[in-house]
Amino acid sequence: MTVYLVGAGPGDADLLTVRAARLLARADVVVHDRLISREVLDLAAPHAELIDVGKRPGSSDSQDDINELLVMLGRRHECVVRLKGGDPFVFGRGGEEALALSAHGVAVEVVAGITSAFAGPLLAGVPVTHRGLSHGVTVVTGSAVPGATVDFRRLANADLTLVVLMGVRRRGVIARELIEGGLERSTPVAVVERASSAQQRVVRCTLEELGARRVESPAVLVIGAVAALDLGRVDDLVSMYALTS
Amino acid sequence: MTVYLVGAGPGDADLLTVRAARLLARADVVVHDRLISREVLDLAAPHAELIDVGKRPGSSDSQDDINELLVMLGRRHECVVRLKGGDPFVFGRGGEEALALSAHGVAVEVVAGITSAFAGPLLAGVPVTHRGLSHGVTVVTGSAVPGATVDFRRLANADLTLVVLMGVRRRGVIARELIEGGLERSTPVAVVERASSAQQRVVRCTLEELGARRVESPAVLVIGAVAALDLGRVDDLVSMYALTS
Repeated sequence: MTVYLVGAGPGDADLLTVRAARLLARADVVVHDRLISREVLDLAAPHAELIDVGKRPGSSDSQDDINELLVMLGRRHECVVRLKGGDPFVFGRGGEEALALSAHGVAVEVVAGITSAFAGPLLAGVPVTHRGLSHGVTVVTGSAVPGATVDFRRLANADLTLVVLMGVRRRGVIARELIEGGLERSTPVAVVERASSAQQRVVRCTLEELGARRVESPAVLVIGAVAALDLGRVDDLVSMYALTS
Repeated sequence: MTVYLVGAGPGDADLLTVRAARLLARADVVVHDRLISREVLDLAAPHAELIDVGKRPGSSDSQDDINELLVMLGRRHECVVRLKGGDPFVFGRGGEEALALSAHGVAVEVVAGITSAFAGPLLAGVPVTHRGLSHGVTVVTGSAVPGATVDFRRLANADLTLVVLMGVRRRGVIARELIEGGLERSTPVAVVERASSAQQRVVRCTLEELGARRVESPAVLVIGAVAALDLGRVDDLVSMYALTS
């Protein structure tokens, strides 16, 4: 009788962990987010019940409903897999679910997954850290949340890469605040749409251009010097070498 | 003839990706870091040659040697797996290896892995983001690097979780700079030693106490309000609820 909060990674089933694949294969119930790919869900045991609890933008109290559902299922089934995009503890609200389950005496185990915050850039050929270009990386969300909207002016730091999840809608505001905070208008940006899917698309521009670029959700914004790199391509290697050595 | 730069995750073989496990099983050569676990290496094909290129502290130019070795092997073998702890593009210097290989005409593919920067906290019951406690997370290294040592005063931001890799030796300096930058002395800290191994140990203290605490490498430092959480334990749930709701 355990609820496993499992990270599903960015979408590609090959990027599941070995442990996630094994848990799916013996799940009685799989409770999943809206963006989990068909390919991943197909790994669930044939008898497993699949429940989509994908939150649509604007639905407010659904996290409480999900917590309640998990508690109920956890009391009834041997193996409940709560499958979340990316990693359960990186903007996954897995902490809230773990708390709710434990508080109701239901055993919980959290299984790490590959966060889109890092897999997105990687799949676009962008290392979030790179000698000479970036000492580190900050990950935030771009959504406007009452009382918790990120002030991007405070995050303007040319030494670090900035990764923004759920930032497509407010990308113009984000870019403006970063420039106000001191980032150069010419700071490279890579936007990775639908990372790891067959529809993956990468848009590259400068911070100044970001607001006017056509970009579709879901996408990861990568902002900083490393966003100029494209390590999957060799046609621009000379200039990359010049940048980094 | 491809060199795969593969993230091995935090150590536990169950936290490899499905793709990493599959590549290991058909590798001709595995070139690995010092901290890759035996359990992971045992997944390599029986005929595979294992080469340990683990860098010891103080060795300076060995990255060039590794790049050269990879180019040489990539020209000679069908499937070379370059296995790196965590994720190749998160402080893994995978970007440099990818550049060197591409520049010499050797095909490269980068395979994401679970970074210890997030798996470490998770395995200690700490979500790096949590509603009401942390809007985001910054990941940096604590090592002193000529010209690239992180100024922690600039990273003092109580709204974000700070994760420091390779920060054990300089933990006193790091704590002092963060306090100078404006973080409270009482800011919670969790230090996760040898995350995901049987020897995993978690030390909890405040930022002020960090410098004097006995801690051993390798360890991940997690600094911020979330570090007070321990979602693997239910004995302190009431106070956690109070903190987060």
